[in-house]
Amino acid sequence: MGDIVRIRRASLVAFCAAVFEKLGLPPGEAADSAEILVAADARGIPSHGVARLPRYANGLRKGIMAGGVEPATLRETPVSLVLDARGAMGLSLSKKTMERVIAKAEASGVAFASVRDSNHFGIAGWYTELAARRGMIGVCMTNTAALGVPTFGREAMFGTNPIAVSAPALGGRLFTLDMATTCVTRGKVEVYEREGKPLPAGWAVDARGASTGDAQRLLEDMLYQRGGGLLPLGGEGETLGGHKGYGLAVLVDIMTAITSGGVFGKAVMDSEATSARVCHFFGAARIDIFRDPGEFKADMDRLLDELSSAVPADGRGRVYYAGQKEHEAEALSDIEGVPLAAEVAARLAELGASLSVELRP
Amino acid sequence: MGDIVRIRRASLVAFCAAVFEKLGLPPGEAADSAEILVAADARGIPSHGVARLPRYANGLRKGIMAGGVEPATLRETPVSLVLDARGAMGLSLSKKTMERVIAKAEASGVAFASVRDSNHFGIAGWYTELAARRGMIGVCMTNTAALGVPTFGREAMFGTNPIAVSAPALGGRLFTLDMATTCVTRGKVEVYEREGKPLPAGWAVDARGASTGDAQRLLEDMLYQRGGGLLPLGGEGETLGGHKGYGLAVLVDIMTAITSGGVFGKAVMDSEATSARVCHFFGAARIDIFRDPGEFKADMDRLLDELSSAVPADGRGRVYYAGQKEHEAEALSDIEGVPLAAEVAARLAELGASLSVELRP
Repeated sequence: MGDIVRIRRASLVAFCAAVFEKLGLPPGEAADSAEILVAADARGIPSHGVARLPRYANGLRKGIMAGGVEPATLRETPVSLVLDARGAMGLSLSKKTMERVIAKAEASGVAFASVRDSNHFGIAGWYTELAARRGMIGVCMTNTAALGVPTFGREAMFGTNPIAVSAPALGGRLFTLDMATTCVTRGKVEVYEREGKPLPAGWAVDARGASTGDAQRLLEDMLYQRGGGLLPLGGEGETLGGHKGYGLAVLVDIMTAITSGGVFGKAVMDSEATSARVCHFFGAARIDIFRDPGEFKADMDRLLDELSSAVPADGRGRVYYAGQKEHEAEALSDIEGVPLAAEVAARLAELGASLSVELRP
Repeated sequence: MGDIVRIRRASLVAFCAAVFEKLGLPPGEAADSAEILVAADARGIPSHGVARLPRYANGLRKGIMAGGVEPATLRETPVSLVLDARGAMGLSLSKKTMERVIAKAEASGVAFASVRDSNHFGIAGWYTELAARRGMIGVCMTNTAALGVPTFGREAMFGTNPIAVSAPALGGRLFTLDMATTCVTRGKVEVYEREGKPLPAGWAVDARGASTGDAQRLLEDMLYQRGGGLLPLGGEGETLGGHKGYGLAVLVDIMTAITSGGVFGKAVMDSEATSARVCHFFGAARIDIFRDPGEFKADMDRLLDELSSAVPADGRGRVYYAGQKEHEAEALSDIEGVPLAAEVAARLAELGASLSVELRP
């Protein structure tokens, strides 16, 4: 880990929005995209934050992603919406789509959307929390470039395909599970490569399908599609449930790409410069289709209290519930500024300078 | 592994139905319960099959579960249904509930049900396949007695809480993911204990929260609630994603018990004689709210073909998709008979004899 600098959240959002505008996004899309990107860093998920800004810039310059694109509606019912994003900016499009899903759920009780031919959308949990803050249960998934190897396989056949779900407790407290369905993402392997550390067993296999700890070789093999890749949640084989993580990853492909007629499985591929076109899934359900929302939230509070006050294992400080670490990190970021690796801040400042946008602390 | 005997599926279903009738279930409930229980053995999931018949018998005799009970409707909308099962037989009640969800989804596009105060319902994937055979995407969850320890914890705070999802491909082929959200279930630990083998690292922790391989001690500690228990999918700590499995297990408690006002978390407890009252969740969505069903199924077929023909790792024979092993086992069972451990068959024959029901091969 290098040095960390902290930048005021509002400054960082303003910077990213200005960069996005310079790159051609309409002001509303630029603001939404900046807000969602910075939220990842604020929550302590830098792999999905502003470090990706240069990749978005490449995507916009090359026309892989574009501002001001109106998605085409492929199908719509009172409980569903299917969109062809036509290469729209994934972040702002996804916010608008989740807002449409929420509006449909307000009217119908529950609604879903699937979207094809979109782009990287940041952290899935941002969209599910949009629903949870409106008193709903939210769900979100996306497929991603194929880097994941099925149980007993050797070729990448699916992405890191995250699943997120949020549900509201009292006083704005949220349960937010936001998880890649592979053990780890490529970003984590890159960290080990930079630090020259061997990968823990269970994270990845090589081109023959054998467990590997060689981060550098793995990254090259994945880049040039020589075989090998990341193992599903649960690791190698079936002993720790790797076949379950594999099943969840495929489920994400079904819900995002097969419901929308998009690209799935091994055909989803990143380029060196930018991310692959991908497919998303969004859902929202009103609590009162099940139960009085006040009673639901009170029980949620009791559940989260019981979990976060559970007795820790010897040598461990605390037990967390899903989302708790991220929400604590976000509260700190709002006071002390959003943490960025100094080298990321330097790269941002450089990108900004090339567009006459200044990064203020 | 002891000897295996194979019994004709129709004979085994008839035997179980007759036993259930002798124990007081109405004929329809007895037949449904028998069908679902035997399906587990037919698919190679004996932990959830007829080996549990003596436990169901205990439950029925003690009044923990009962036949002929009408569930109370707590809430109902065109897209939802919430039931208090009032201790009904979990298997037949769950079939009826999924059928009501499917009927609602036929009309509304999508529908969900949550159920509280029910009993063990066998394999979750049986209910999701009911939806998938009707051309829908099906989802099902249940909470179970608390045996699972949260990441960094030492006390059991949630069950093995399975999640199942099915989606249809062409020609009746189905994708069915049906997975406990702990690494393994108690049944698997019992097998290791019987065989005197140490548990693999990552399956369980002891009463201090430290990794344990001692199956016998673990089973005792869990039985007498001394602390310790099963680790979530992904194993110990966060290295292989144990916090993700933990989050999924809690999600199941939310969707099953908090939506229905039922019992959740550490309060769900088995007795020595029978299983705890539990909560379920069922959902079904029509494919055509997203896409032409023929196109959806054709893409599903392509996905399942790509996965099952993926190049295997060195030394591995095949790559499977979720549900494939179980469907192959079921096809074999339909030809050669349902496989039962000889000791299970002997115990069934004994139970049958006590009720004047004969187990025919």
